[in-house]
Amino acid sequence: MVVEEGTAPPAKAMETDKKLIKKPVNQPRFEKYVVPMSLHAENRAKLVKALGETLSAAGKENGVVLLQGGEQQTRYDTDHEPLFRQESYFAYLFGVTEAGFYGAVDVATGKSILFAPRLPSEYAIWMGKIQPPQHFKDKYEVDEAKYVDELSATLMELGGEGGAPTLLLLHGKNSDSGSWAAPAEFEGIGSFLVDKTTLFPVLSECRVRKSQAELDLLRYVNRVSTAAHIEVMRRVKPGMTEYQLESLFQHFCYFEGGCRHCSYTCICASGDNAATLHYGHAGAPNDKILSDGDLILLDMGAEYHCYASDITCTYPVNGKFTEGQETVYNSVLAASEAVMEAMKPGVAWPDLHRLAERRILEGLVEGGVLIGSVDEMLEADLGAVFMPHGLGHFMGLDTHDVGGYPEGVKRSEKPGLRSLRTARTLEEGMVITVEPGCYFVEATLGPALQDPDRSRFFVLEEIEKLRGSGGVRIEDDVIVTADGCENMTDVPRKTYEIERVMAGESWPLPVSRG
Amino acid sequence: MVVEEGTAPPAKAMETDKKLIKKPVNQPRFEKYVVPMSLHAENRAKLVKALGETLSAAGKENGVVLLQGGEQQTRYDTDHEPLFRQESYFAYLFGVTEAGFYGAVDVATGKSILFAPRLPSEYAIWMGKIQPPQHFKDKYEVDEAKYVDELSATLMELGGEGGAPTLLLLHGKNSDSGSWAAPAEFEGIGSFLVDKTTLFPVLSECRVRKSQAELDLLRYVNRVSTAAHIEVMRRVKPGMTEYQLESLFQHFCYFEGGCRHCSYTCICASGDNAATLHYGHAGAPNDKILSDGDLILLDMGAEYHCYASDITCTYPVNGKFTEGQETVYNSVLAASEAVMEAMKPGVAWPDLHRLAERRILEGLVEGGVLIGSVDEMLEADLGAVFMPHGLGHFMGLDTHDVGGYPEGVKRSEKPGLRSLRTARTLEEGMVITVEPGCYFVEATLGPALQDPDRSRFFVLEEIEKLRGSGGVRIEDDVIVTADGCENMTDVPRKTYEIERVMAGESWPLPVSRG
Repeated sequence: MVVEEGTAPPAKAMETDKKLIKKPVNQPRFEKYVVPMSLHAENRAKLVKALGETLSAAGKENGVVLLQGGEQQTRYDTDHEPLFRQESYFAYLFGVTEAGFYGAVDVATGKSILFAPRLPSEYAIWMGKIQPPQHFKDKYEVDEAKYVDELSATLMELGGEGGAPTLLLLHGKNSDSGSWAAPAEFEGIGSFLVDKTTLFPVLSECRVRKSQAELDLLRYVNRVSTAAHIEVMRRVKPGMTEYQLESLFQHFCYFEGGCRHCSYTCICASGDNAATLHYGHAGAPNDKILSDGDLILLDMGAEYHCYASDITCTYPVNGKFTEGQETVYNSVLAASEAVMEAMKPGVAWPDLHRLAERRILEGLVEGGVLIGSVDEMLEADLGAVFMPHGLGHFMGLDTHDVGGYPEGVKRSEKPGLRSLRTARTLEEGMVITVEPGCYFVEATLGPALQDPDRSRFFVLEEIEKLRGSGGVRIEDDVIVTADGCENMTDVPRKTYEIERVMAGESWPLPVSRG
Repeated sequence: MVVEEGTAPPAKAMETDKKLIKKPVNQPRFEKYVVPMSLHAENRAKLVKALGETLSAAGKENGVVLLQGGEQQTRYDTDHEPLFRQESYFAYLFGVTEAGFYGAVDVATGKSILFAPRLPSEYAIWMGKIQPPQHFKDKYEVDEAKYVDELSATLMELGGEGGAPTLLLLHGKNSDSGSWAAPAEFEGIGSFLVDKTTLFPVLSECRVRKSQAELDLLRYVNRVSTAAHIEVMRRVKPGMTEYQLESLFQHFCYFEGGCRHCSYTCICASGDNAATLHYGHAGAPNDKILSDGDLILLDMGAEYHCYASDITCTYPVNGKFTEGQETVYNSVLAASEAVMEAMKPGVAWPDLHRLAERRILEGLVEGGVLIGSVDEMLEADLGAVFMPHGLGHFMGLDTHDVGGYPEGVKRSEKPGLRSLRTARTLEEGMVITVEPGCYFVEATLGPALQDPDRSRFFVLEEIEKLRGSGGVRIEDDVIVTADGCENMTDVPRKTYEIERVMAGESWPLPVSRG
């Protein structure tokens, strides 16, 4: 989607601004987004259907899905309680915000049951009113609610005359972390047959293609994050410290949009820090002062009702791109545009990764940073020197959402491609980030300079100029539609758009009166 | 410290404002607070001295203190990494902000050694430059720094010709959580003798009396939190949502004061929510709209370099106390003032808890809510009906800091007193919160109304009016000095001060020109 300077803003952008409510001072800019609990009922129905098919195809009997929700943690040995955030599979099926729950779904009937912890009487003094199960039945719109200590007996009843039903438990390996989902545990589980293999792939697959209700929610949290990025863009000045931008972003998302959590730790990387892909953690805590002349890469996204956003903007701290910065920036932007142009069901994601690499390398050739045949560069895996991460990842309840490598989808061993968090072919309803980047990372550039097969493409003088300059990432959150894609993220992307918004113009840019 | 309306502001308050730097827009209001690493060297020296004495008194040989720092966590089975926060004992001795470290201190020589994790090469791409041990030796000013995989061999060397030294490991029960500190574990620990009983009480005791450097740091974080509370106080309006105040507070502390963490989840409790002492958690997430006529209780504190603050302000959402609110508020304020008046070394904290109860009950008698003898009320434990928590707790690296119940200090079994997080006698250098409160909690009021021994003091008509109105807490962070105390918290406390600051006057209030 190419917009010429001074033309009317795209329709979607205008729509975004209409949703910003004009309200008195101190009132949130976004109207409270009430998530319909039917979203989770729909998720459960989808699971029940898929499980029914899978079990029947395997000649297995129906069973009862049992998930254990997250528990409230404490910090080390203290009584400090970090703010609870629900486990994502549990959030998907039940939307429960409180800790200590279990949830069951009977595959045969679709019946859903929540189990609430029975709280001690002091809870009423310290934590709030003790609610009966009926409260949670109403709040989460499930068929039944009971106490956790009734779990075993209730599950047994579901089996009816057939005796204890088979429990379908969640057990499987997350392809991003390599960690295993922990199957539910409870007193009395020994009386049941358990199936720990069926649920995980089926439930993960359900999460891959989003429903309309999920998409609406994802669009909302994207609108909030988009507006927050624009707010930050307008405030950035040399002399500020990186973390001030993190603070501005978080505040906007919470104060204006009700997003208490961010999807991940904000990455506010100025200058050479931008070459550290996950900068911002406790060991590199966004604490550098912004220098005039540097770019800043801001990778930040709000979360709402456990649904994520994940947006990156890169722009000059002083509001004006240099020629060199523009070369790198426009290479990445060209990649982003080419990928979104090509996205549609049936296209393989690794092919789009390669397309992004191609556009970036072409841009660097055009800018005089590289020399030679781009085909040969791709052959030599030169792309991964400048973009050592994958083009993008599924996004949903987790920032790096599940389902990227189901059985049968193989991870490539090639540089760049092996970092892809999915190698799947696109399908309608998938939500994926498009985040090409071009960085000057010592850890990849150093070895490439020593390797004649790759260094032959370098215009050394230009490369030297760019070393230590950090890098550029442009990241949008995109829905795969029936015949293309929908970009939920609407921030200034063209260099002139960024410069004008940083200079104080409204977004979308006003229509020129020429 | 009683300040009359219109008189000159107290000296300490003026000092606070002097430290606010006037800077251009977007620059932090507080100059960056650089924590001297000598703070931790001093902490280590204090431990070495205390351990030397304890070991020698027990006829034990010197050994080597070994602590394991916190590890980076991931959320459930995903690769989501919550922002790392160091374990407090480790932070006390070493001040290390990164995850995955060990630290050792040789009791005989005082020699300190840090052990850094050896990071994989991809770390450089994703997380940042891989630093050699020398970097951490310089950064944290320890005597030596090595890799974690050199831990076992290095400790063995410390034993010299005497062979493997005894390792003093941290193992003991936190008196607030009931959880146990986990002793360090590493490959090869089997070759060492370990002592898991000596270190915990001695190190906990070291943390109880703060050094000057610690006090300076605590004063800083209190200044930031104090200013943030005043900022929020000026912004509160009916119609806002509770969490918007949380967002404002967090943003101020981070943007202006560099405090990335809060010490605990913000409690922003309006109206009846104030009767839930730890409101604000995920199950009660600060999501009520502020009603005209309600009080709001804000219990919020920033953290800096792992040192806490913990401040509560209570005031009317619309900026004007009603008569009934003033009765309750002034009872609590009288308690706070009486306690600080009485605080000095040698005073038993439970006695001050009783003093606070007495003042609150007196205030309620004066306001016509209770009737009868206050002595008899205290005898009947009536105080705990209105203040079901303890008067205050140690504060330092943890909000509820360690050392409240060392061997020999017993927890009372009486209502109210049993909730005290310490029953100790005050000593110079202790830092403790003074947080009397008066609430109308159904869970305590209901039973009291049924109990003739307590209900005989109630003026039922007045109690009925106050039911559901929430409550008041006033919380300051106080240092016990040689002959009294120093209140680090400087926010408007008198009702007229609050009303004038909410109406837009500066703080400290301007001197009247009468």
